[in-house]
Amino acid sequence: MAEGPKIISDLVQAGLKIHSLFSLEEAEGFGVEAAVISPAELQKISALKTANSMLAVFYLPEKPTLPEKGLVVALDAVRDPGNLGTIIRLCDWFGVKALICSEDTADCFNPKVVQATMGSIARVGVSYTDLSDYLQSSRKPIYAAVMDGGNVYNEKLPKDAVLVMGNEANGISEAVLALIQHKITIPNFGDVNTAESLNVATATGILLSEFRRSIET
Amino acid sequence: MAEGPKIISDLVQAGLKIHSLFSLEEAEGFGVEAAVISPAELQKISALKTANSMLAVFYLPEKPTLPEKGLVVALDAVRDPGNLGTIIRLCDWFGVKALICSEDTADCFNPKVVQATMGSIARVGVSYTDLSDYLQSSRKPIYAAVMDGGNVYNEKLPKDAVLVMGNEANGISEAVLALIQHKITIPNFGDVNTAESLNVATATGILLSEFRRSIET
Repeated sequence: MAEGPKIISDLVQAGLKIHSLFSLEEAEGFGVEAAVISPAELQKISALKTANSMLAVFYLPEKPTLPEKGLVVALDAVRDPGNLGTIIRLCDWFGVKALICSEDTADCFNPKVVQATMGSIARVGVSYTDLSDYLQSSRKPIYAAVMDGGNVYNEKLPKDAVLVMGNEANGISEAVLALIQHKITIPNFGDVNTAESLNVATATGILLSEFRRSIET
Repeated sequence: MAEGPKIISDLVQAGLKIHSLFSLEEAEGFGVEAAVISPAELQKISALKTANSMLAVFYLPEKPTLPEKGLVVALDAVRDPGNLGTIIRLCDWFGVKALICSEDTADCFNPKVVQATMGSIARVGVSYTDLSDYLQSSRKPIYAAVMDGGNVYNEKLPKDAVLVMGNEANGISEAVLALIQHKITIPNFGDVNTAESLNVATATGILLSEFRRSIET
């Protein structure tokens, strides 16, 4: 489900198919007929505090196929829909085609996630699987963000890799941590008493930027 | 106002003074006596959906003095409290002591901001001022994140600088843009139809990381 003409038309353009479309006014160009409803009706079915002018229910996209080449992001129990949405948007920006999520990661089709991705959900293939199984069968080098890894600025980061990011409160689980080959850390430049950690979405952004810079420069 | 024993004790440790403390249980070590109240009373005064076990009202910190040296972040009308909180936490992580906000930027003492900073609000000096006046009087080189600037990975970023970040929807205002000396951009690695922009907090994280890396390496 997505709300607002901008994100709905972005999703249609990216190839997603609308199941039902509800709108305060006649709407064209979405490939289906819009049911015109009242503001009170729209507010009732909306997931937003204040409904937009249009709401669409989409068919789920087909299960993505995993690309053999390139950078893959893997999430170990990222629970917050806002964080997941931001990470999907970051993957889109940095050209990451595949996001692998542990089964206990937030649902990428949760309306809050869809809304936070700003349409990027249609361009990034999100899969849910047993993360340990996936990492064991992957041939790419496995990197992960931890608190006590090597300084990321000093690493030569490869083009083909898996980057694992962990849960908001507990980081990466023991079972997954045992499979990590390269532990990396964003260095802290504050005082002794400074922030304990970065938000997982912010840290993902900084690390994806480092992977891309490493290829480009 | 801050909620939860962890953030309250972080703020006290960082030097902020409590005006009043409310708690579900007797609480010691906060420098003031806690008023023990019921869960229903705490929920009433809480800004959270589900109240924590403790709520403190703090005296406002003294107006920060602007450090002459180092990196300064300036915000032009960043409106979302979550974004402002994340940016304050990022400044703390990357050792940025001063955050200059335009008058129409969100209030840094909004409970949502305080909560999102995870205690970093006590370690970063936040000032509100006319941004054009500040930039005109500053002797540091002025950088800003825009959509069509130079590739940030190719820039030699200095130790002393101001980094300007703009509004969530409209970017940097015309008046401020006229004062920018170095326009920088985080390159997009996606397809033609990829994400239009990054979230302002995520972009701030990536750029602060680039400034720090540029000094360190």
